[in-house]
Amino acid sequence: MSLDAVLARIDADLPKSLDRLFALLRLKSISADPAFAPQVRAAGAACVALLAELGFEASLRETPGHPIMVAHWTGPVENEGRHVLFYGHYDVQPVDPLSLWTSDPFDPKLETRDGVEVISARGAADDKGQVVTFLEAMRALLAEEGRLPVKVTVLLEGEEESGSPSLEPFLKAHAAELSHDLALVCDTDMWARGRPAITTSLRGLVGEEVRISCSNRDLHSGSFGGPAWNPIRVLTKILASLHDDTGRVTLPGFYDGVDDLPAEVRASWEALGTTAESFLGPVGLKTPAGEAGRSILEQVWARPTCEFNGVSGGYEGDGFKTVLPAEAMAKVSFRLVGRQDPEAIRAAFRARVRALLPPDAEVAFHAHGGSPGFSMPFDHPALAGARAALADEWGVPALLIGGGGSIPVGVAFARLLDMPTLFVGFGLADDRIHSPNEKYDLVSFHKGTRSWARILKALV
Amino acid sequence: MSLDAVLARIDADLPKSLDRLFALLRLKSISADPAFAPQVRAAGAACVALLAELGFEASLRETPGHPIMVAHWTGPVENEGRHVLFYGHYDVQPVDPLSLWTSDPFDPKLETRDGVEVISARGAADDKGQVVTFLEAMRALLAEEGRLPVKVTVLLEGEEESGSPSLEPFLKAHAAELSHDLALVCDTDMWARGRPAITTSLRGLVGEEVRISCSNRDLHSGSFGGPAWNPIRVLTKILASLHDDTGRVTLPGFYDGVDDLPAEVRASWEALGTTAESFLGPVGLKTPAGEAGRSILEQVWARPTCEFNGVSGGYEGDGFKTVLPAEAMAKVSFRLVGRQDPEAIRAAFRARVRALLPPDAEVAFHAHGGSPGFSMPFDHPALAGARAALADEWGVPALLIGGGGSIPVGVAFARLLDMPTLFVGFGLADDRIHSPNEKYDLVSFHKGTRSWARILKALV
Repeated sequence: MSLDAVLARIDADLPKSLDRLFALLRLKSISADPAFAPQVRAAGAACVALLAELGFEASLRETPGHPIMVAHWTGPVENEGRHVLFYGHYDVQPVDPLSLWTSDPFDPKLETRDGVEVISARGAADDKGQVVTFLEAMRALLAEEGRLPVKVTVLLEGEEESGSPSLEPFLKAHAAELSHDLALVCDTDMWARGRPAITTSLRGLVGEEVRISCSNRDLHSGSFGGPAWNPIRVLTKILASLHDDTGRVTLPGFYDGVDDLPAEVRASWEALGTTAESFLGPVGLKTPAGEAGRSILEQVWARPTCEFNGVSGGYEGDGFKTVLPAEAMAKVSFRLVGRQDPEAIRAAFRARVRALLPPDAEVAFHAHGGSPGFSMPFDHPALAGARAALADEWGVPALLIGGGGSIPVGVAFARLLDMPTLFVGFGLADDRIHSPNEKYDLVSFHKGTRSWARILKALV
Repeated sequence: MSLDAVLARIDADLPKSLDRLFALLRLKSISADPAFAPQVRAAGAACVALLAELGFEASLRETPGHPIMVAHWTGPVENEGRHVLFYGHYDVQPVDPLSLWTSDPFDPKLETRDGVEVISARGAADDKGQVVTFLEAMRALLAEEGRLPVKVTVLLEGEEESGSPSLEPFLKAHAAELSHDLALVCDTDMWARGRPAITTSLRGLVGEEVRISCSNRDLHSGSFGGPAWNPIRVLTKILASLHDDTGRVTLPGFYDGVDDLPAEVRASWEALGTTAESFLGPVGLKTPAGEAGRSILEQVWARPTCEFNGVSGGYEGDGFKTVLPAEAMAKVSFRLVGRQDPEAIRAAFRARVRALLPPDAEVAFHAHGGSPGFSMPFDHPALAGARAALADEWGVPALLIGGGGSIPVGVAFARLLDMPTLFVGFGLADDRIHSPNEKYDLVSFHKGTRSWARILKALV
């Protein structure tokens, strides 16, 4: 059976696969620091070389920032009628503080940590190691079968760790070239060691800064306390109005586009055994603060929130000052799911603030981004194929999980390229991405490569 | 008539009175700056000399800080059965920024500002000029009558601008020596130029700092938003619970000991013509924020408040950070009137905070002072006498006014010496006390001296 040969080749080639990954990890492609721009470009060029070596038509495409690597497979394909876009990034996070690394972040090595063999380097998990699983899977497929199961385009950007400023304009400018049946992204985690997962939902985000001002200068609370409006009082009344006693957000229409979970998914999440104690205990908490009657995982993965990320006003230092401040400020954000409309929610928030504003108070708003949630339809056929492929590889069912945070690329693919995204990744919560001593389990790299070979075959 | 002779002597001696005041104003008695300690002591010694020259038994009394000047009149008295304590302070505020002064703050001079002749110097109004009005009144009385109308003890402290840390211990240690029928304090303002006033109420203050903590560290709002308690949410619910929609404070028992104004006083305040526009307009406000149905002056002078003086938590800088903070803080104060008990109100506030605390939140309180309001009973006989004396001098009725802030000495006299206090002062709102270019109207100094002569006679 052909797949067995492909998997056997992946096993046999593991040392060479690691060599290729290590060569990429040695390039200091820190996108946030302009001093490293040549190394970022060198990493992009190394990706071009890797893809060209496989037979792709690969090139670096210029942007106002770091280049985007695009590679098209133009050789033989098992099912010419299906075309996927693989997305990843070849840039990495800064490494400071360097003193906390136990070895050079750009001198990758295999080492054993807590009994687990890992690849230690900046970018091992985020995202070079994950990208290379996909490239090595294609390498084995091509070596054994002489063709790819489906048409593949690879897009690797060099600005993901700097907010991806060039990606959306690039997608818009090259929509026809990049819009295909399905996007594959390998930049997420498994549920746990040995427990593969597909991330089918991620929350969007609306950020708002609201600034309430009353008097034209700070006032003495003795001379003016009573008659003078206090912007902290105005602001706290507004913020306190946003949640009801059951933890639900009170803005009209807030839950429009929020679907309940399919029973099967809800049951699978409940079976994961995440409890208030296991989830909240490590951060010193006990009782869930979200909507009453929803499990912890549902609250994080499938329910929207309203959060207060910052508040300030008046005297905040040591001691006491009997001041009535002229101004108070809050930073408020909403995590979004399903089809919640960021701009409708921003408008509902602003309307609430204005409705609770006394005549003497003025408000200024500052928008801090707005993006909808991402969700892969639970009935998408690629999902079933990928789940089966992962289950075959790992020997346990693949979980459909959510993510509490945002990965903007999934939303961008949906919005700009009208393309669903399959998020499959082999990272683990202890990979220390963005921190000193980042690592990627060797098992993640090896079985991740095998997983992609199986998934590509399943997508035929 | 004897009083006429006293007043005529005050008029005739005005140049010499100014010379004596100017000598005191030249001493740089800045109590807050240790570098000026010798000058503070010199100013205290100058007061000893002034009182001794009048025939008082005067001395500087040591404290852990700057000395307190105490002087007793032991000579002849018209009414031996009545004894008053005059209180003032001989220290002054710092003068920085010196560059904003149009002349040397410690080189007093007479000058004309906006058509008004004023004494320009640091301390001219706060409080050396006001203190000297009382001393010069006694000087004229003694010169013309050879006795004082009532027994007089004078207490002048040198730490009023530094929070009076030594005063209360001193009053406690010398209660028998200092506790008499009535205290006279000359450290307040008139209602307006030409409109004499007696301050019969001042608000007390309870300060509380409340710190709410939830998780044991800052959390990512994507990973934890929903299940994790947000201390800003907890805090804003608490703060928002403290006022009802009519501006009343909702703490149980908060209004215990708050009396309604006598109809006569209310009518006299209404007659002052203070409107929302006149009071709030200059600070950019329009509509009173205090209890519905109470006039502006009643809200400031006769009603208690709950104010938020500071709030902080989470990310307060530019841009946005999707953080769930571990902690949030507010500084809350209550202005008190009548017989409101500061410690009962502190306890009610803390009980409210604890009642609204979810199980995951912890609270830490930090008390920032607590003192009750001051009030002079409206039916105290000294009040009628002083009002009549002021009306005779100024040709218009003397107003009974309140003060929105605190003057702790009135409360200390009541609490430690069981002594009511008559606050009569001749300052004006434009005296620029605590600011560059402090001044005292020459009319305030001259007619203030005449006023005290009349009041002392009225107290017989």
